[in-house]
Amino acid sequence: MRRGTSENKPNKATELLPEPTIRRLPWYLAYVSMLRSENIEYVSSTRISEELHVDSSQIAKDLSFINIKGKTRIGYEVASLEDALRSFLGFSQRHDAVMVGAGSLGAALMQDSGLQRYGLNIVAGIDTNPGLIGTEIAGIPVYGPEQLAPMVERLHITVGIIAVPVESAQTVADALIAAGVRALWNFTPTRIRVDNDDVVVTNTSIYSHLAVMYNRLSNLPDPTSR
Amino acid sequence: MRRGTSENKPNKATELLPEPTIRRLPWYLAYVSMLRSENIEYVSSTRISEELHVDSSQIAKDLSFINIKGKTRIGYEVASLEDALRSFLGFSQRHDAVMVGAGSLGAALMQDSGLQRYGLNIVAGIDTNPGLIGTEIAGIPVYGPEQLAPMVERLHITVGIIAVPVESAQTVADALIAAGVRALWNFTPTRIRVDNDDVVVTNTSIYSHLAVMYNRLSNLPDPTSR
Repeated sequence: MRRGTSENKPNKATELLPEPTIRRLPWYLAYVSMLRSENIEYVSSTRISEELHVDSSQIAKDLSFINIKGKTRIGYEVASLEDALRSFLGFSQRHDAVMVGAGSLGAALMQDSGLQRYGLNIVAGIDTNPGLIGTEIAGIPVYGPEQLAPMVERLHITVGIIAVPVESAQTVADALIAAGVRALWNFTPTRIRVDNDDVVVTNTSIYSHLAVMYNRLSNLPDPTSR
Repeated sequence: MRRGTSENKPNKATELLPEPTIRRLPWYLAYVSMLRSENIEYVSSTRISEELHVDSSQIAKDLSFINIKGKTRIGYEVASLEDALRSFLGFSQRHDAVMVGAGSLGAALMQDSGLQRYGLNIVAGIDTNPGLIGTEIAGIPVYGPEQLAPMVERLHITVGIIAVPVESAQTVADALIAAGVRALWNFTPTRIRVDNDDVVVTNTSIYSHLAVMYNRLSNLPDPTSR
């Protein structure tokens, strides 16, 4: 994860949060969204704590970042908390993205309506496969690689999603940055080098998570020996 | 991440590695796979270091876990290193899995042939939607929820993948554990509680990664002010 060495004073809403806090906030959001759909009006940090197994003082600390305070004895108002979390996390704002690599994983992500719900608007796919160029995936058009730069520039696309084979990942990253994206979301198992501090890199290495899972699995006691 | 408090002495191959090491190993694998496809025979840790921006002493330390040693001046043999990494990471072994929730994200993952290449064999999908039950997604059959337990038991399925709406995530996790899976791979943004130390939980919260990315983005210096 990289960020600019910003010289402007960060405002409260966009303060650089500790990553563990940012990772917990979506848990709270998921839980309060559920409560809201059940028409529950208030929730205490104790209740959130029991449900999510996060210490209640930690919850209060995490939520203090978004300027939400609970009421004594009653707790947090569910609807306000949900709105505040969604907005704070950037999920209610639209972020335009291009998916580079519309093969298996790329196409899969283009079909996931969840990303749209969380504010990511994939406007186009880019692929080198002539069989894909000119088609649509989940209503999103797929173009050839020569369209990458002009499209990013013309549409002011902020996010470049990388779902290409490993050997092309770095070239694609360089092309996206040169075209002007401000964030790379890397789904390949490789590491991407970025020398520009003004570009954010987020890695979602699905296959690395698999490796962690397999390793933990192989360390479980053998069930047949019990 | 949880694991059993194993009393058997861990053997070298399955030692509980530090998670940062496990997350770097797939980078090395991706890189050496690429070298191998280019018929390159040897690679030095210095070269890997330059390519991936990981300190070369760290690389040597990471690779020592898999009992691979480079030769002085020549470095690591690419083919052996690739095989050793793939096998060590569990990618050459088959792990049977069931996908619970064959909606947008679940179906997307079922269509991703990459998972198969990394050793994850999704044998079935489970969904409550009558329109999906009885169909196939990428050749994988989808069954109703009443098939979950008998299938996990009959086929000795190890991994339960959770891609259901948030409000059902915990119920599904409980059902999978009761049926006998040994690992849960949670794709929902919520936290799953597991009271059984013999079950591994891995979270791939795609939407949390989005939140981290949006937060970093909002902290970049404003490009229009430059």
